[in-house]
Amino acid sequence: MTEPEFHHPLRVYWEDTDAGGVVFFANYLKFFERARTEWLRSLGFDQQRLRTDTGAMFIVADTSVSYFAPARLDDLLLISVRITEAGRATMALLQEARRAGELLASSTIRIGCIDAGTFKPRRIPNELLSLLR
Amino acid sequence: MTEPEFHHPLRVYWEDTDAGGVVFFANYLKFFERARTEWLRSLGFDQQRLRTDTGAMFIVADTSVSYFAPARLDDLLLISVRITEAGRATMALLQEARRAGELLASSTIRIGCIDAGTFKPRRIPNELLSLLR
Amino acid sequence: MTEPEFHHPLRVYWEDTDAGGVVFFANYLKFFERARTEWLRSLGFDQQRLRTDTGAMFIVADTSVSYFAPARLDDLLLISVRITEAGRATMALLQEARRAGELLASSTIRIGCIDAGTFKPRRIPNELLSLLR
Amino acid sequence: MTEPEFHHPLRVYWEDTDAGGVVFFANYLKFFERARTEWLRSLGFDQQRLRTDTGAMFIVADTSVSYFAPARLDDLLLISVRITEAGRATMALLQEARRAGELLASSTIRIGCIDAGTFKPRRIPNELLSLLR
Repeated sequence: MTEPEFHHPLRVYWEDTDAGGVVFFANYLKFFERARTEWLRSLGFDQQRLRTDTGAMFIVADTSVSYFAPARLDDLLLISVRITEAGRATMALLQEARRAGELLASSTIRIGCIDAGTFKPRRIPNELLSLLR
Repeated sequence: MTEPEFHHPLRVYWEDTDAGGVVFFANYLKFFERARTEWLRSLGFDQQRLRTDTGAMFIVADTSVSYFAPARLDDLLLISVRITEAGRATMALLQEARRAGELLASSTIRIGCIDAGTFKPRRIPNELLSLLR
Repeated sequence: MTEPEFHHPLRVYWEDTDAGGVVFFANYLKFFERARTEWLRSLGFDQQRLRTDTGAMFIVADTSVSYFAPARLDDLLLISVRITEAGRATMALLQEARRAGELLASSTIRIGCIDAGTFKPRRIPNELLSLLR
Repeated sequence: MTEPEFHHPLRVYWEDTDAGGVVFFANYLKFFERARTEWLRSLGFDQQRLRTDTGAMFIVADTSVSYFAPARLDDLLLISVRITEAGRATMALLQEARRAGELLASSTIRIGCIDAGTFKPRRIPNELLSLLR
């Protein structure tokens, strides 16, 4: 069993901001992706190696984000990952971005496992799936 | 009244792709944003000038994207914008990304109008609102 | 023989700007890359197909950029490509970004041709090389 | 006096890569910028606060990068910052990206201090300048 919630800290840099003076909205999807990658790494799964070893690759099938308050340059954010559903070939995650406890953005993301060569859906590798359930 | 649907063509460059060999999923939000900006421009509204003239700025409040098929380097995409709801301070849009007619990604986006100084919600400037309804 | 100079127009979007209110400096490298890709396309070379057909891929070996004046949201830029040297496996280019004639940034870029599988240097495919000289 | 060299570790994520399977060349400028920001922070200077307190902002005047070997997804990079010249209104830096000691990319960057309101050159704030020399 995995921990109920994983947290990944990250800093807001110039590259993340836009001329509105705040983090560009699309970049939260990057922040959420970094946290998912670190969450998988914390479970012992390096995606590059997973692909080489098993041919499996994860893709994003659906994503929805709600934005509540803007983040700014130099802010330190905490990005969470919580698995809400683990099927054989897909999983659903709830992810949030917070600054000092304040909720800035919240996201639900559905991830699918595919064969990296054919891009066809496939079963999540067992050694990972057993950790997700 | 605005046209029922606006279309913006764009090309996939190296910067848009990732090591999976396809367009990085978060970048569709950039594609959709470019199309909204060109749609506003087609209605006579340049966002930089709108901000200077009226103090109004648009922000993304919610976005959801479903991914159906990947785009690749050199693909020519057509991004659509269709307004589905126009309130006094917010609007909702349906946006799609297609390649030669094939639907690659579809998105619903809720945009809010705020005061660029205070980041508080405000009424969409009348001259624009009258075009959206 | 190729034309002495190729030009590619592009628009500055929110994604290109940063909290300084101007285009984020690193993004000029993206603009220059887009122009190179369109320049190759204008010569009849689609990079994805070049890679599939010949196994050749271009990589950036060196780049230098000087920044003279900032670009802002909604600006329309014209990006130039001028080849200054065409060797067997490398080429050098001079690229500029202008807004209404004003020089905003200037770059010299050295590109190498490599084998996409091995990442080893290789000769630029003849059909392209003959156009560059 | 500042330390002779500052180091900032970072991880390569999907967002950093391109369809060549490696880090997109322009993204090294982002990596170098993150390291400069952390270097300034390590000296006690938060850029957002520096701007609010003194009106000073740093911009990139010139940058050159040489690429020696590609970084890939999941790689852990170490980015260095070494000041090579500190004038009254500009400074020059040498920055490198390494993976397990191997040099992947090297850069020289010239930074200028400007007034955030007027974008005119100005003296680097004394409390920072005294640390750089």
